Amino acid sequence: MEIVRDIKTMRENVAEMKRQGKSVGLVPTMGYLHEGHLALMDTARKENDVVVVSDFVNPLQFGPNEDYLVYPRDMDRDAQLCSEHGVDFLFVPTVEEMYPKKDNQVDVFVDVKHLDENLCGRFRPGHFRGVVTVVTKLFNIVSPNKAYFGMKDIQQLRIIEEMVNDLNMNIEIVPVPTVREPSGLALSSRNTYLSAEEREKAASIYKSLLMAKDLVLEKGVRSTAEVISTCTRFLSQQGFKIQYFQLVDYDTLELLPKIEPPQKIIIATAVFLGKVRLIDNLVVEVR
Amino acid sequence: MEIVRDIKTMRENVAEMKRQGKSVGLVPTMGYLHEGHLALMDTARKENDVVVVSDFVNPLQFGPNEDYLVYPRDMDRDAQLCSEHGVDFLFVPTVEEMYPKKDNQVDVFVDVKHLDENLCGRFRPGHFRGVVTVVTKLFNIVSPNKAYFGMKDIQQLRIIEEMVNDLNMNIEIVPVPTVREPSGLALSSRNTYLSAEEREKAASIYKSLLMAKDLVLEKGVRSTAEVISTCTRFLSQQGFKIQYFQLVDYDTLELLPKIEPPQKIIIATAVFLGKVRLIDNLVVEVR
Repeated sequence: MEIVRDIKTMRENVAEMKRQGKSVGLVPTMGYLHEGHLALMDTARKENDVVVVSDFVNPLQFGPNEDYLVYPRDMDRDAQLCSEHGVDFLFVPTVEEMYPKKDNQVDVFVDVKHLDENLCGRFRPGHFRGVVTVVTKLFNIVSPNKAYFGMKDIQQLRIIEEMVNDLNMNIEIVPVPTVREPSGLALSSRNTYLSAEEREKAASIYKSLLMAKDLVLEKGVRSTAEVISTCTRFLSQQGFKIQYFQLVDYDTLELLPKIEPPQKIIIATAVFLGKVRLIDNLVVEVR
Repeated sequence: MEIVRDIKTMRENVAEMKRQGKSVGLVPTMGYLHEGHLALMDTARKENDVVVVSDFVNPLQFGPNEDYLVYPRDMDRDAQLCSEHGVDFLFVPTVEEMYPKKDNQVDVFVDVKHLDENLCGRFRPGHFRGVVTVVTKLFNIVSPNKAYFGMKDIQQLRIIEEMVNDLNMNIEIVPVPTVREPSGLALSSRNTYLSAEEREKAASIYKSLLMAKDLVLEKGVRSTAEVISTCTRFLSQQGFKIQYFQLVDYDTLELLPKIEPPQKIIIATAVFLGKVRLIDNLVVEVR
């Protein structure tokens, strides 16, 4: 595995691979890799001749009161894991390499409308602008045939799918299912912020989503208000502070007052456990 | 020359050319071609194995009170000119091909800050968002090695140069000097709106720019207010309604209260002659 720190070298490596007729898969990450990332890499490994992992904590997607400075980093462990999982190139640019202008700003950027009005977008203004901007940059640097994104960040995945459509990017986006602990807790680099006790309690987030799924699929509840009320009561009783618990249309990410089958929906929540913000979701086909 | 109407065929054609190791030059236009466009094509023809011209009046870059519906179109003549100038592919997508979503909207788009605050950007809100979005789409569809833009639309050129930097697009932007009538009038598809008498008068726009250049370079005037006052007085006396007459820094496009050599500046103006809006500019190195 080759560790690449600058854009020019990354481009040259990919150009050489493409000259050899090889397909390239990209797994964009912010590092501090866990089993969820490894599932992305393993899927990419199966489907491409060359696998590139990018490991870059993107300042542009963090709000002023968010955890950019303390976001967990462990480059040596990341490199070890990538190497073990058959990654060919690990791209680890500095902030200055990615954002060389004054104050690490960009004058031209990618942005989102409509699709960022609900779910995380409502509570993290500018977050998805930062995400689609850095993903566009990575796509332009690596020119992958396919790129791999986890379904844990479902709004990110959907927005990137729409970006590829709207901007005619010639890249296939491959969604990879969320990896969970045996308790059901979705893996996240931010789980490292949790105490052992909190980690145990955090399993209830997934339980609340299963509860909502059961209400919709088994009990036939069609009022989303009823689903939300039941699930948020459960989460509140467990001591979570709820930022949102929403049911949205899979395609438009618009809030659903009621479910009208056949419909593909996303049930998603963001909660605080102490100061730690955790998200999770389920995609459900209602027939 | 092959006329291509859909994105898939355009992509396949370019992919085949690239497999043959050929370089591709793109000339994005809104059609109704004039000598200015032909200069772009001729430059592209010299520098590339394959020349693609796109001919698409982009609704996204027109304001609600602008001339989208009446913008001049003449596809047969355009195709004839392209063919005569050695163009290999003329890409003429429909609006639905480029913007297939409801109301021809995009949810993810490219946008600009800072660089659109002066010059045309100040008077055409959303214009440059539409420009950089469609140019990004065209770049992603055609994957050119080089793309050609006229210096007549200097703010567009500068913004696209910054877009390529900020988003790491692997494309060389080639600026091509403005082509003028013998009178000095810059060629523009919108000149077709002018009467013979107006066309004669419109030559004064370029004269006002030369006047500004002379004040700065020969007379040593450093106060931009003084330059602006002299030149706008001249234009007003000729019966022009002035939208702006500005001197900005070439790199930042910021307004200059005074000129501090060495400095590369843009002297630019937009005026109305009757209902027709005309723009022109000069790039000046002040030593």
